[in-house]
Amino acid sequence: MGRATDRRSVLRIDLDATDDARVALRRPDTLAVEEPLEIRVGPGGPGRRRPLAVTMRTPGDDLDLAIGFLLTEGLIRSDADVHTAQLCSGVETPNTYNVVDVVLAPGVPAPATDPTRNFYTTSSCGVCGKASIDAVRTRSRFTVADDPLTVPAKLLAELPDRLRAAQRAFDRTGGLHAAGLFTPDGELVVLREDVGRHNAVDKVIGWAVRQRRLPLAGHLLLVSGRASFELTQKAWMAGLPLLAAVSAPSTLAADLADEAGLTLVGFLRGRTMNVYTGTHRVTP
Amino acid sequence: MGRATDRRSVLRIDLDATDDARVALRRPDTLAVEEPLEIRVGPGGPGRRRPLAVTMRTPGDDLDLAIGFLLTEGLIRSDADVHTAQLCSGVETPNTYNVVDVVLAPGVPAPATDPTRNFYTTSSCGVCGKASIDAVRTRSRFTVADDPLTVPAKLLAELPDRLRAAQRAFDRTGGLHAAGLFTPDGELVVLREDVGRHNAVDKVIGWAVRQRRLPLAGHLLLVSGRASFELTQKAWMAGLPLLAAVSAPSTLAADLADEAGLTLVGFLRGRTMNVYTGTHRVTP
Repeated sequence: MGRATDRRSVLRIDLDATDDARVALRRPDTLAVEEPLEIRVGPGGPGRRRPLAVTMRTPGDDLDLAIGFLLTEGLIRSDADVHTAQLCSGVETPNTYNVVDVVLAPGVPAPATDPTRNFYTTSSCGVCGKASIDAVRTRSRFTVADDPLTVPAKLLAELPDRLRAAQRAFDRTGGLHAAGLFTPDGELVVLREDVGRHNAVDKVIGWAVRQRRLPLAGHLLLVSGRASFELTQKAWMAGLPLLAAVSAPSTLAADLADEAGLTLVGFLRGRTMNVYTGTHRVTP
Repeated sequence: MGRATDRRSVLRIDLDATDDARVALRRPDTLAVEEPLEIRVGPGGPGRRRPLAVTMRTPGDDLDLAIGFLLTEGLIRSDADVHTAQLCSGVETPNTYNVVDVVLAPGVPAPATDPTRNFYTTSSCGVCGKASIDAVRTRSRFTVADDPLTVPAKLLAELPDRLRAAQRAFDRTGGLHAAGLFTPDGELVVLREDVGRHNAVDKVIGWAVRQRRLPLAGHLLLVSGRASFELTQKAWMAGLPLLAAVSAPSTLAADLADEAGLTLVGFLRGRTMNVYTGTHRVTP
């Protein structure tokens, strides 16, 4: 099984105050591991799964990652749509632990094409942000607009520190994104780290799928970086009513959250935050 | 033409020192725009281009983005491989400025499949980091290992401030990645910003391709975030001998840089930096 971190030799340079001299020291440094993961999907029977996607990820929780990806792309609806999911080797190759083979339950349609393409071309406007939003709305099984969750601003402000305290690999590498699922009381339910922020979120959601906890009504998701369209899509697909990010959201993230009735919090740092949509869920 | 930033209404919350009260203010906030861009590629003649990829990007420099993507994926070798590249509308749809149509020069083979897939499955080990590295080595036209570039550590340490000073949109949104191409003297040649760091790099490299400046021998590229495998691949494909990142590299980025003979600098902040590979290019 792959490791989340590994060591490399590095030349550490510290310039002194005058810039005229420096201290250079060769030492080992701990890096976040990045390796490709191929997700294969299809019906049962030998050789019937087809490669669907390759993502560059940090090894660990790979089954959760694959299941979370399939769920947030709308290719499966729940754990019941998956017959088996396992790490496997390629054909006639040694097991590199970089392939997840997902056998769909009988009757579940195999994806016809690259799912990322379908998300952007279903509307009459061709390729545009509105079409992207329409496509997610069409696929989402869960309504989050009427989720009664409320969270005090004071509690929200404490969550980044809780997330960071629980991050083990980041402290050693400085190179991992984190996603944390919290209860309304601020209890951390599950934390996942990855070089890709979308992978960290898929690992959290895939864990919840396999635990049969979807929809994640009444929960909130905190991500260590920015809030993109893709992360907002994943939150909606999992039925999460609140997505909080330590950094900035994009316009399309805010527009998708608005469409979903999902609360989007950005720049959650120190004692301040910006609430872009669903402001009624953040209470004094 | 799309804009790089747009405004949304936001509820700004500032907790006071006791956490017992707060100031909440509704105000406009400037966000980084995120919109899908579809890249279509193929030979000349009506209806002969096929969708190759959709990337979520910040509008602007879209032709550079498309050309840079094609170059760094190994699908074109230079500007001469492109007959025309233009922003176009979808079939029977209004022009959303979210599609780039690339007509390849006669004799240039159209990509047979999704190029991202080919990068990970060309070696006998199936899907693994080594196969990913082998695939880039096979495709790269340029040798960077013998590039005589050297840069004083003192100069390197100044570059993040120069990049940041030139970033216009980040200052307004806090949500854009930047990539800057520099000369060995620390002169900024070109800067591009995007919600996706890979897009920012593709825009820089695509600009250089269209300016017929490849290989970018003797130059260095600085990115505002982390250094992933993908960004290191792009640097090598463009013939860049040095990639510097403000934040952490991954293991596979370091391994690919080592294979290429490319200098990889990480954690370039304040007066310190880590040199992971090609240390001889960073001089006292």
